[in-house]
Amino acid sequence: MRRIADSTVRRLSLYLSALEAFEAQGMTTVSSAALATRGGTTSAQVRKDLSFFGSFGKRGLGYASAELAARLRDILGLKRAYRLAFVGAGKMASALVNYRGFDQRGFHIQAVYDTDPSVIGQTWNGVTVRNAKQMVGDLKGNPVDIGVIVTPADAAQGVTDQLVQAGVKAILNFAPAPIMAPPDVSVKSVNLTLELEALSYALSNR
Amino acid sequence: MRRIADSTVRRLSLYLSALEAFEAQGMTTVSSAALATRGGTTSAQVRKDLSFFGSFGKRGLGYASAELAARLRDILGLKRAYRLAFVGAGKMASALVNYRGFDQRGFHIQAVYDTDPSVIGQTWNGVTVRNAKQMVGDLKGNPVDIGVIVTPADAAQGVTDQLVQAGVKAILNFAPAPIMAPPDVSVKSVNLTLELEALSYALSNR
Repeated sequence: MRRIADSTVRRLSLYLSALEAFEAQGMTTVSSAALATRGGTTSAQVRKDLSFFGSFGKRGLGYASAELAARLRDILGLKRAYRLAFVGAGKMASALVNYRGFDQRGFHIQAVYDTDPSVIGQTWNGVTVRNAKQMVGDLKGNPVDIGVIVTPADAAQGVTDQLVQAGVKAILNFAPAPIMAPPDVSVKSVNLTLELEALSYALSNR
Repeated sequence: MRRIADSTVRRLSLYLSALEAFEAQGMTTVSSAALATRGGTTSAQVRKDLSFFGSFGKRGLGYASAELAARLRDILGLKRAYRLAFVGAGKMASALVNYRGFDQRGFHIQAVYDTDPSVIGQTWNGVTVRNAKQMVGDLKGNPVDIGVIVTPADAAQGVTDQLVQAGVKAILNFAPAPIMAPPDVSVKSVNLTLELEALSYALSNR
């Protein structure tokens, strides 16, 4: 399969989110214009993005919502479940582990690790927090698909190296620091502090 | 003050995060190489970024951590507190409102709004969830600095329009949909679903 650009993958996710909302409202067809609005793009771009995967639309009728949503789920790899290991069991990790949106989208939290003896042994949303020293051994025996890093910035690279050593091929990094991984490991970052500070900067320099 | 590019603001945030970690370890000076690693960039870029704001470094000695951190906090607008209003009181909002990292960085949650009668009236981390219908009126009398959108995708633009109407000048959007706001309103987006789906795509198309 030809590799799709990151920006296209993001739009496909947005189209899927839009289609699911339209389906929930009972709409069986949807126009490229409606998808364009929700994808932050143009109708022409929607048609281009989707034509790449086959023919879903009929001129004048729009796209068949259910059919297109199923195909997008397939393309995005959402027809299977994924196992996640969280590394770092602080306040942000606690918020995320207790957020049920992961499970609903098929991302199941299999393990949580920390180095703090006062947190190790606690049960979070059915998962017992384990000693980070056991992580590499655990994950070699019981692999996960995605490692979620929720540690302080200075621990993030070390944890990345351990996850890579344990065979993890995808990492979601919430630590406020960039991390480096081999090319066969996918890394995505979510940095709440950075976004908030970009807003405080904008508000202070108007 | 000259406008700094978004990418530079992001690096300044990363440098600040690194400096705070170095300070916590008792390091009074830090090299441009150390900041470069934590900012995901080069020593030359660090020197260029920081020279823009004055002279902090001494050749061969590095930067004075405390002095540089204070200056970065000043530049990023972090010497004052910000008031936040959350719109949408679902699972993700609950996780975020109960996350204490906001308060610690000076981002105080003043109000939470929802349309669901079963949620309105609940107290979250000391803040009572109010009816979204009261939002514009509330915020006109009691302004907030930043509106945080944690609604489903199809409600995000309507909420944005209301926040703008209420005079909010900065928006942090967690809804899985792009939003449009006038040019004098700063918008940043955090989309967990998009990042997870980018990873599931990568894992499924290796």
